[in-house]
Amino acid sequence: MLIGGIEAGGTKFVCAVGDENGNIKNKTTFPTEDPDQTLENVEKFFKQYEIQALGVGTFGPVDLDAKSNTYGTIQKTPKINWQYYPFLQRLKEIFSIPIAMDTDVNAACLGEFTYGAARNADSSLYITVGTGIGAGLVQHGRIFQGKNHSEMGHILIPRHPDDDFKGNCPSHGTCFEGLASGPAIEKRYGKKGHLLAEEAHVWELEAFYLAQAIMSYYVILSPEKIILGGGVMKQEKLYPMVQNKFMDLLNGYLEVKNVKNLIVAPELDDEQGVIGSVMLGLKALEMKA
Amino acid sequence: MLIGGIEAGGTKFVCAVGDENGNIKNKTTFPTEDPDQTLENVEKFFKQYEIQALGVGTFGPVDLDAKSNTYGTIQKTPKINWQYYPFLQRLKEIFSIPIAMDTDVNAACLGEFTYGAARNADSSLYITVGTGIGAGLVQHGRIFQGKNHSEMGHILIPRHPDDDFKGNCPSHGTCFEGLASGPAIEKRYGKKGHLLAEEAHVWELEAFYLAQAIMSYYVILSPEKIILGGGVMKQEKLYPMVQNKFMDLLNGYLEVKNVKNLIVAPELDDEQGVIGSVMLGLKALEMKA
Ligand SMILES: Nc1ncnc2c1ncn2[C@@H]1O[C@H](COP(=O)(O)OP(=O)(O)O)[C@@H](O)[C@H]1O
Ligand SMILES: Nc1ncnc2c1ncn2[C@@H]1O[C@H](COP(=O)(O)OP(=O)(O)O)[C@@H](O)[C@H]1O
Ligand SMILES: [Zn+2]
Ligand SMILES: [Zn+2]
Repeated sequence: MLIGGIEAGGTKFVCAVGDENGNIKNKTTFPTEDPDQTLENVEKFFKQYEIQALGVGTFGPVDLDAKSNTYGTIQKTPKINWQYYPFLQRLKEIFSIPIAMDTDVNAACLGEFTYGAARNADSSLYITVGTGIGAGLVQHGRIFQGKNHSEMGHILIPRHPDDDFKGNCPSHGTCFEGLASGPAIEKRYGKKGHLLAEEAHVWELEAFYLAQAIMSYYVILSPEKIILGGGVMKQEKLYPMVQNKFMDLLNGYLEVKNVKNLIVAPELDDEQGVIGSVMLGLKALEMKA
Repeated sequence: MLIGGIEAGGTKFVCAVGDENGNIKNKTTFPTEDPDQTLENVEKFFKQYEIQALGVGTFGPVDLDAKSNTYGTIQKTPKINWQYYPFLQRLKEIFSIPIAMDTDVNAACLGEFTYGAARNADSSLYITVGTGIGAGLVQHGRIFQGKNHSEMGHILIPRHPDDDFKGNCPSHGTCFEGLASGPAIEKRYGKKGHLLAEEAHVWELEAFYLAQAIMSYYVILSPEKIILGGGVMKQEKLYPMVQNKFMDLLNGYLEVKNVKNLIVAPELDDEQGVIGSVMLGLKALEMKA
């Protein structure tokens, strides 16, 4: 059986076909253009296969409130071509098969939960620290969602007393994303993150913010695993720094047996998104079956 | 049919019997003494009725990880008599009926969700701002729980630039609870909250912290209702202040149609805890049935 998965990102689309065990059979990547051109490329790729269902992990903001009449539609976004585009509805018109849509981070979380770093856990938070910061939660095999999907990157966290950067979130300035995303690092120091690899103070501050945010996520959600991914985490020295700072902040208030097993790296090498999307498709199929 | 409910607080226990529609038939309150004396009082009250099941909303910290071998046991606490007391197990020995245990705030949340301010919502966060700060979440009729129960009062939030209070959380100093609980107000100003009613700046600051915390809860959990209860919220002027500050912080990032319907007061007049506990008991009965 073949299931389709789309990792729909703001700069590129990854389309894949996989089986019910999460094995990717084929995969293609193309740049995100205007919606019509992009969906034409999507259609062309999947027409080669007989897929039974499709899962989509998309960039956002996207309306995922099932009761809303803009369900599956991209919301207000700087990508003007995509603004108010009825993404899910268009896909349903093209493919007459079960389709499930969720956020990119929720799909990635589902991938790591099913086959990656959290495969033996009952609940898992997947945080991506890249161009933006986002996080998805899977619990007992199900993606967490309230009325709408989470926007966890926009929590408010304490400032470091020595940091006077104004933050770069267009809505909140110094929310977590505004202080700690890749572009925030670039704007604060005038250089991209990979060029700052040797500057210890850069990663001290970054780990400080990551630990603050994880502290809030942890006491709210109590996940069994916290997976930290995204471009900024290519600085692998961040992992032990974040683990230590998190334990300092928690200060024994809750028992964590081994923080090295709690805060971990992803294991699916940038494939968590498409694998999770295929898993989403599988869920869509089960729901309709 | 009669179901028992216990609101087990650090200073007092409220025991009630109710029916499957949440109607409380009888209720008693006694101070929390050492565990044996307290459980004797509990037993005496419920012996008068033929209850089919029992629900308990307890103070904490309590181990609610079903896989743990101290499940249902009170954890490290300043209440030394209760520390490591196997609360759930003792209740099971006394009453040979289905028993469910959860946190006090989760029980209160379930009460408001079922019959109170969130009765028409699909997900609801109940925050209590009292001696401590805690919050519980109910979604699609189920209490949210990760590996263990949440400890939402201990999130980290930005300090107000003019506030140099050191905070009074024994573990984290200036976490949300350390900055904004009733005792934090008392320690910051040297007077209890109800004696500060006329001091506008006190409630400005309190609303500032409540809004910061709610902002983080909201983007993480996306609840349909946020119910603010507890002794500090007796200052009713806080509601509009918190609503306005929250909207300012959100800054249009997510659409909130009417904040007055989002951030609301409880509706069950200090009975949400016992009513929710009775609901917990009902769930225990259904699980065993
Ligand atoms: N080796 C690195 N060290 C630090 N930052 C990096 C590194 N590689 C990429 N980044 C930063 O990560 C961000 C891109 O994140 P990524 O997860 O790859 O993409 P996206 O979030 O757009 O999917 C950029 O801001 C980039 O500067
Ligand atoms: N009218 C009031 N105004 C401000 N604070 C109040 C008021 N009434 C009680 N409080 C504060 O609320 C706290 C008690 O909260 P409460 O929810 O009643 O109890 P608990 O959290 O112990 O269950 C105390 O710190 C008290 O000073
Ligand atoms: Zn933001
Ligand atoms: Zn604390």
